[in-house]
Amino acid sequence: MNAPHTAARPAPSRRATFPYAIEIATRFMDNDVYGHVNNAVYYALFDTVINRYLIEHGLDVNASPVIGLAAESGCRFYASFAYPELIEARLRIGHLGTSSVRYEVGLFAEFTDDTGRDDTRDEDPCRAEGHFVHVFVDRATRVPTPIPEPLRSALAALLTR
Amino acid sequence: MNAPHTAARPAPSRRATFPYAIEIATRFMDNDVYGHVNNAVYYALFDTVINRYLIEHGLDVNASPVIGLAAESGCRFYASFAYPELIEARLRIGHLGTSSVRYEVGLFAEFTDDTGRDDTRDEDPCRAEGHFVHVFVDRATRVPTPIPEPLRSALAALLTR
Amino acid sequence: MNAPHTAARPAPSRRATFPYAIEIATRFMDNDVYGHVNNAVYYALFDTVINRYLIEHGLDVNASPVIGLAAESGCRFYASFAYPELIEARLRIGHLGTSSVRYEVGLFAEFTDDTGRDDTRDEDPCRAEGHFVHVFVDRATRVPTPIPEPLRSALAALLTR
Amino acid sequence: MNAPHTAARPAPSRRATFPYAIEIATRFMDNDVYGHVNNAVYYALFDTVINRYLIEHGLDVNASPVIGLAAESGCRFYASFAYPELIEARLRIGHLGTSSVRYEVGLFAEFTDDTGRDDTRDEDPCRAEGHFVHVFVDRATRVPTPIPEPLRSALAALLTR
Repeated sequence: MNAPHTAARPAPSRRATFPYAIEIATRFMDNDVYGHVNNAVYYALFDTVINRYLIEHGLDVNASPVIGLAAESGCRFYASFAYPELIEARLRIGHLGTSSVRYEVGLFAEFTDDTGRDDTRDEDPCRAEGHFVHVFVDRATRVPTPIPEPLRSALAALLTR
Repeated sequence: MNAPHTAARPAPSRRATFPYAIEIATRFMDNDVYGHVNNAVYYALFDTVINRYLIEHGLDVNASPVIGLAAESGCRFYASFAYPELIEARLRIGHLGTSSVRYEVGLFAEFTDDTGRDDTRDEDPCRAEGHFVHVFVDRATRVPTPIPEPLRSALAALLTR
Repeated sequence: MNAPHTAARPAPSRRATFPYAIEIATRFMDNDVYGHVNNAVYYALFDTVINRYLIEHGLDVNASPVIGLAAESGCRFYASFAYPELIEARLRIGHLGTSSVRYEVGLFAEFTDDTGRDDTRDEDPCRAEGHFVHVFVDRATRVPTPIPEPLRSALAALLTR
Repeated sequence: MNAPHTAARPAPSRRATFPYAIEIATRFMDNDVYGHVNNAVYYALFDTVINRYLIEHGLDVNASPVIGLAAESGCRFYASFAYPELIEARLRIGHLGTSSVRYEVGLFAEFTDDTGRDDTRDEDPCRAEGHFVHVFVDRATRVPTPIPEPLRSALAALLTR
């Protein structure tokens, strides 16, 4: 379960600040004994939206000569999710270096109105906000290497600052 | 998989700086397509060592009137683990406030020498270093509340600064 | 990864034999070192479609006086899934006793045609076929108890034999 | 949570009928909303003890020319586990064919007596009993292939019937 937002930390980002989105169904076993999605599951969702974007833009996780290694990750929790809710995971790029990238992910509730239409709003705050830093390296030597095209352009397209 | 340690970030903490330790076996499905324990699993291990310590010191996860909510978590990855390795998860307290606590976890490889004896060393660096901030609240009202005894004393015993 | 269908075992069930369906996104960490969704994940998906149906028909997992305990489960694997595929999990009831129920689940690939329309077919075989036996018991005493209405009627609606 | 043993199904196997054993720590997130280890986790434990035995006897999951594909699995649940319990996963071989093998796994509670010594007993019944059928195939062509030595001998050593 997640703590209420307090003055001591940044306000949650709004939906419209993350250009890319996918939907992920919660699973029964995501809920822990407190009846809410366990915090570790959030990181599994970060991985899922990040790699989905990379794969759609040409990353071959089985054969790419350049792979992304996890250097750091983190999350601030503002409000909880619970199975059977549907989660919208949204992605932006916070920083794009020569061989490293900072992904920023916002997790949002997915709502529908009485007619079944999507009833989410651009100004909705995220319930959790995470980041993930990848360093790209040569698959064989593990030496940091510049992010190759067309991956670099795909990542640059999600830069929002 | 995890990025090599670079000058830009803090050096990994040493084994002896974390007073409390448990062993956790890796599982076959912890390994992802890159052949190493997936980053989200690290957070499941943080939860496991933290709650084990809390339960050993009197927390009743099913009935306690005061519960800890996740406010923030994070991890720096220095070197990877792979099934079937055995992981030693170690815990210290970085900050103890009136109603909040910062847990710090180091994940270490567990080794044995030729005679089967534990061959780990106090000065070994961790392979991953995480933190977790809990805010304690009343289970019913969710209002932040002072950490009750004897939990506070148990947490204070792991303060290392 | 999953074994090819051989003569020694039943043919996989067809899509149309399972009346109820939900979609579940695969996650990056579902894939194991062989590059396919790990077999244990299939059981997490069974739980997800079963409890979703129960919750939609009135089960309150936190407060219901009657709860379903797992007695037995099983799965036959015909073809594999891999992240980032979308899975359609479908449900039927194989047997409905006084205090026990046999759920049968089929997992199917979800496809779209060139125009984005759902391109799945009634006669498609499932990639995996599972079952799950629940015994309903009193939450407090754990004594088997008749399945209460309206849950019984909801389960009976998915009986296909 | 698991159903009580009833006359309608086989009695749980005893500890001594499974020659090979490993210990696996439960994790906080293994517990679901009912406060017990979720049923899908059991299958992750089956995978863990099976592959540990295979790896100890020469299987290279990354490079072996012959790999085992899941054809079928199943489990009967007799009594539940809950974090932070320690689980003993035990393995025997139920059937060894030319290119297929039936693994049988028993999950037991791990106890210690007042002096800290292992207090488990040969005649203890398992809390859950599972099976797993692997068909061995050529990694590239996926054609069933005879189980190679020394893997065959290692599996034969666990045959108990």
